[in-house]
Parts: sequence; structure tokens; C-alpha cells
Amino acid sequence: MKVVVHVQLREGVLDPQGKAIAGALNTLGFAGVVDARQSKVIALDLEDMDESTARARVDEMCRKLLANTVIETYSVSIEPAG
Amino acid sequence: MKVVVHVQLREGVLDPQGKAIAGALNTLGFAGVVDARQSKVIALDLEDMDESTARARVDEMCRKLLANTVIETYSVSIEPAG
Repeated sequence: MKVVVHVQLREGVLDPQGKAIAGALNTLGFAGVVDARQSKVIALDLEDMDESTARARVDEMCRKLLANTVIETYSVSIEPAG
Repeated sequence: MKVVVHVQLREGVLDPQGKAIAGALNTLGFAGVVDARQSKVIALDLEDMDESTARARVDEMCRKLLANTVIETYSVSIEPAG
């Protein structure tokens, strides 16, 4: 089964990558870029299990490895089988 | 206006970050992780413009800076105003 985890910096946390992107876009001549924020997506392929088990397990993965919950938030979406 | 760009490695391109994540999850005792792929999301805040202009401009940003189209694909979604 496919599970998609989206990890992003909390609002208010400085995002140097995003700032670099916005700066580079302006340097390249793209006017009108007010701000950019970068975040990451982790697509997991798990062995089949029921959805509530998967959700609990992925939540634990996020807290233990995938996200730094001090500065990041995460959201989990489980893609329906088939 | 908010525009979200999702940049991911093409299928078949080796993803060392994803492999490291899958390995680390297994090491931490999470059984059943078959594979993991990491990708990135860039959320842009642009000055308001009409949607087709925004789409063309962001497409050009992707080709020039945000994605390496040799090994990556990208998708653009424009969030409705308001």
C-alpha cells in the first residue's frame, strides 16, 4: 500500500532553502515572487495492512524519524488500495 | 496567489535519500517498509496574475531552476484565489 507523508516547516520557522529559491527566481528575472517555502514528501510503499494500523505506524515513523516535530509538522495520506 | 510545485525523481532514477529512509525505518524496527521515495514541494507565493499567465511562468521557473528535467518531473497546481 502507498502512503504519502508531507513534512513541512512550521509557520514562522525560517526556511533558508525557500529564501534561496525566491532569491534565485528574482535573480533570473521572474518578477512577482513574494515568497517560497520548500517542504518534502516521502512516499512509502508498505506491505498491505489495515488502514488504521498503517496510520498508527506511519504516525510513529514520523515522530521517530521522518519529521522533527519541534520545527516541522507532517500530514499523512493513505492511498486507497487497488 | 499560491502555487504549489511538486518535483519528483523520474521512475527508475535511483533515489539514495529514499533508500536511506527505508533502511533507517527497517533499522528502527518498522517491518514491512518495501520502499521509500523522497520528493520535494515548493510552495510559491506570487503576486496576483491571471491563472494562465501564472501557469506559463511557473512552468518556465520549473524548467530553468526548480526541476532538473533530465532526472525529475514536476507538476504545478494553482490554488484558487480567496
